[in-house]
Amino acid sequence: MKQRVEQLRELMQQHNMDYYIVPSSDPHMSEYLPERFKQRAWVSGFTGSAGTLVIGMNEAGLWTDGRYFIQAERQLKDTGIKLFKMRVPGAITIKDYLAQNTNKDSVVGFDGRLLSEGYVKGLKETLDCSLIIDKDLVDEIWTDRPSLPSDKAFKHEIEFTGLSTLEKIEQLKQSNKADAYLLCSLDDICWLYNIRANDIKNNPVLMSYALVADKNYLFTDKSKVEHLELEGITVRDYDEITEVLASLEGTVYVDPTRSNHYVVNAINCEIIEGRNVTTDLKAKKNDVEIKNLINCQIKDGIAMTKFLHWLDNSNGVSELEAEAKLLSFRSEQPDFIQNSFDYISAYGDNAAMMHYKASPETNRVIDNKSFYLIDSGGQYLDGTTDITRTLSCGELTEEERIDYTLVLKGHIALSKAVFLEGTTGSNLDILARQPIWEHNMDYKCGTGHGVGYLLNVHEGPHGFARTPNNVALEVGMIITNEPGIYKENRHGIRTENTLLVRPYSKGEFGEFYNFETISYCPIDLRPVKKDMLTEQEIDWLTNYHNKVIELLSPSIQAELEWVKEITTL
Amino acid sequence: MKQRVEQLRELMQQHNMDYYIVPSSDPHMSEYLPERFKQRAWVSGFTGSAGTLVIGMNEAGLWTDGRYFIQAERQLKDTGIKLFKMRVPGAITIKDYLAQNTNKDSVVGFDGRLLSEGYVKGLKETLDCSLIIDKDLVDEIWTDRPSLPSDKAFKHEIEFTGLSTLEKIEQLKQSNKADAYLLCSLDDICWLYNIRANDIKNNPVLMSYALVADKNYLFTDKSKVEHLELEGITVRDYDEITEVLASLEGTVYVDPTRSNHYVVNAINCEIIEGRNVTTDLKAKKNDVEIKNLINCQIKDGIAMTKFLHWLDNSNGVSELEAEAKLLSFRSEQPDFIQNSFDYISAYGDNAAMMHYKASPETNRVIDNKSFYLIDSGGQYLDGTTDITRTLSCGELTEEERIDYTLVLKGHIALSKAVFLEGTTGSNLDILARQPIWEHNMDYKCGTGHGVGYLLNVHEGPHGFARTPNNVALEVGMIITNEPGIYKENRHGIRTENTLLVRPYSKGEFGEFYNFETISYCPIDLRPVKKDMLTEQEIDWLTNYHNKVIELLSPSIQAELEWVKEITTL
Repeated sequence: MKQRVEQLRELMQQHNMDYYIVPSSDPHMSEYLPERFKQRAWVSGFTGSAGTLVIGMNEAGLWTDGRYFIQAERQLKDTGIKLFKMRVPGAITIKDYLAQNTNKDSVVGFDGRLLSEGYVKGLKETLDCSLIIDKDLVDEIWTDRPSLPSDKAFKHEIEFTGLSTLEKIEQLKQSNKADAYLLCSLDDICWLYNIRANDIKNNPVLMSYALVADKNYLFTDKSKVEHLELEGITVRDYDEITEVLASLEGTVYVDPTRSNHYVVNAINCEIIEGRNVTTDLKAKKNDVEIKNLINCQIKDGIAMTKFLHWLDNSNGVSELEAEAKLLSFRSEQPDFIQNSFDYISAYGDNAAMMHYKASPETNRVIDNKSFYLIDSGGQYLDGTTDITRTLSCGELTEEERIDYTLVLKGHIALSKAVFLEGTTGSNLDILARQPIWEHNMDYKCGTGHGVGYLLNVHEGPHGFARTPNNVALEVGMIITNEPGIYKENRHGIRTENTLLVRPYSKGEFGEFYNFETISYCPIDLRPVKKDMLTEQEIDWLTNYHNKVIELLSPSIQAELEWVKEITTL
Repeated sequence: MKQRVEQLRELMQQHNMDYYIVPSSDPHMSEYLPERFKQRAWVSGFTGSAGTLVIGMNEAGLWTDGRYFIQAERQLKDTGIKLFKMRVPGAITIKDYLAQNTNKDSVVGFDGRLLSEGYVKGLKETLDCSLIIDKDLVDEIWTDRPSLPSDKAFKHEIEFTGLSTLEKIEQLKQSNKADAYLLCSLDDICWLYNIRANDIKNNPVLMSYALVADKNYLFTDKSKVEHLELEGITVRDYDEITEVLASLEGTVYVDPTRSNHYVVNAINCEIIEGRNVTTDLKAKKNDVEIKNLINCQIKDGIAMTKFLHWLDNSNGVSELEAEAKLLSFRSEQPDFIQNSFDYISAYGDNAAMMHYKASPETNRVIDNKSFYLIDSGGQYLDGTTDITRTLSCGELTEEERIDYTLVLKGHIALSKAVFLEGTTGSNLDILARQPIWEHNMDYKCGTGHGVGYLLNVHEGPHGFARTPNNVALEVGMIITNEPGIYKENRHGIRTENTLLVRPYSKGEFGEFYNFETISYCPIDLRPVKKDMLTEQEIDWLTNYHNKVIELLSPSIQAELEWVKEITTL
């Protein structure tokens, strides 16, 4: 690693740069990165999902957050790279660090494709020095840098999408935000053009840019789409985006948080900033998508139920064996494509790590006490799923039973919410936390997120969290409901379903919405302390399991008795 | 009114102004205005609490919001002033109206003392014309303009405040925001300097500016404070504020939403903007204040209980007679000074108007059916109160009983909340609304607000509302809990207590807080549908009334049997 930093310093000197920023991102601000864009990990040796490397002539620093302090300290040992902890008392931001160490004669460089327009704007406001925005220095020294997958893209057919590409483009244009719309974020592009591909693990997206202007442009590796009939779409090479952007006149609509600075910088006409219109359009699932999604959720529920039944009746299964078995159950379902994220298959105290990923080193055999937690999901032609169940493995402590029941109470409270139009996820988040807070516990994450439709498992703009979010929940949006309790060295519990926002009533006081739970899989009620539940909560559980059995029973005859057994209070 | 507008146009011509803005405000951005600063009402004839007049050479417009459309239409008839409705589809803001009607040669004038720094900043960003900020044209034609009250100020003694002025100034300086601190908002100034006065009805404040710099300045009518021993405070004339501000060097901290543009414009050194530090300091009541406040709330509860008992046992009482009687009960209490706001004394459908004020024209006699709502409060040397009770007057409909019970359920849910440090009022607001929303109803206002301490009854920075508010609730803050249901032409129901934030627990998951209800007055349980309450809600009511009886009983012996009767489910 030391050598790589030194090689970069040599290149920096050639360009007269004083600092060079190596971020952990791709040109599309993707949550999950193709191997090709793990440049920060390659240079620094630190493999955490979040972190930015800043190289100066005398000092190199790696900025990361509390999830990764221990890992970063270990991985950065002997690299000469200093760890800068983010969001701790006395922490310094990269911007302020650079401001303190530069003056108007200094030069800071980076690959502008890897930083968002909003981030670079912030840099420019803080720094008084020159910026070089077009140098991918890492590429010059990373000789065996992985290329992108060459898998072909495929069309997401209208029987699944409900709307043609041209209809979606029409919706976008009707927003009347500008003369042209730039899209850098891959899920927005794939949604708009009804295309899917295999460029990022678990996310069926295509590396590309889109521009809706005089023509509807798609900038991508042409070989990946040449077999497709793309009605009304003009395909150009990936790198031609800047050339076309430079030629635009009038106004261009740009999402500064989801567009990279390099391409935005190519625009010569007026820029109008705001959240991508497609982000809002795709968040509200249409009737065809909802019908498909419910079918998809039933299939996913069948796979989950078979898996839980299998596991509950097996002995000596390890976390890794369990997750492989679940994938095999999902694979049996029609139109299944792949996982929607890396499964969290966690036994006992492993489940206390919210983002645990079983590996040969950590793999545990599931024993006959405590809990097993499985958070998983699939990509199907008719939708994307995300579901968590926590299974009792045998003997439980009183603490485990209380915690399990509190999580369930929180889950039910949010599921049952009725809310006025205009209500946000920040308003409702407390409903899931209140029973847990009453017992002096909390979970250190949001309560839920939007989900794509054969797209990213995490999708905005809405979400359940305490932090202010001004996006109102609207009919057709889907969102996960996943409160939990995580106790280090003890256990982790989470119960997660997906909710669909639907109309509830309309009258003198306005329009009210509520949620329909659209994940169908038994919740293990054996750990529940029944005396902690209200009559209304018991009713909710009865109704939910009646629905689950009604929808799944044709396909889970062998598991039916077991389902009834574990769902009887 | 027509003539007044014409007189202003003549003056505008003398100053080459194309537009002149007459706002409804004073130099201190006060919520309630001294008569002297009701200039917009005087010029336009429109007396609503919110509204701004803009006079052009050919058109004069009055901007106001939905609460006042009907009143404004009536009062503006024959004045030649056009009503501009705010926050309706197609509405145009004053800024945009002026932008459309001016160019770089135009001149817009106003009295910069009456517009906040933030508002004028917005004007400057939108308008391309010249501004004249120092002309109070209304004063030139309003020959019998009321002067300010000449009442003397008084010192709020340390036995009530708990902290001396110098200790408070030290707290302010420890924020290290700047070299100097400008305060224009009267409650901030009076809190800091432990002074109270009588310059605004119901708000015991002193018209003044404060500046904490090399000296601790108070700019005010010297005659009002010359009898006071003001330790460490330099008193200067009210208008000298600009001169002293102009002489400052270094940095000055300014709250742009609570400071007027005219004085801020006088500053020649660097301005640092942010919420007044004193706003946060005074929101957290200290131990002495809390001890006093609880005593104050007990006294207020005695007055309220005597009043409700009297009313429940009287016949033929009118709304105006009732509110006068309540004031007389409060006046019997030690250290009572005045009302903290104009009482809402409302019978039947009058209570459906959330901000109703009984007048000889609307005054109704309380009959033997439906509800009577009384929202009131007092200013005492040991605190400010704000409480609402809704009393059943006899026969109730099923709808009235259900609505009453739902409001009570919402009130109890919020009272019982347990919450993690960092939680805001926007997070918790839903708890009070959820039972009401489940029945397709809502109240079109926030759920509660902070309360001053012998100061304004509405005090920030925190509050319960759906709209995002990033102010975390902290130990020592007080906040009202006042959900309601308002049905036009039918009834209005509200149950309001004041809550104190206190520590609840501290452990592995962080610090938790909860509320202590510190209003002590029986809640009428005769209207309640008991089968709609949970066991926990019934327990809360029992505990609450036990506490009320315990605290008040020495002073309400005559009313005790009645209290027990109406609080038995």
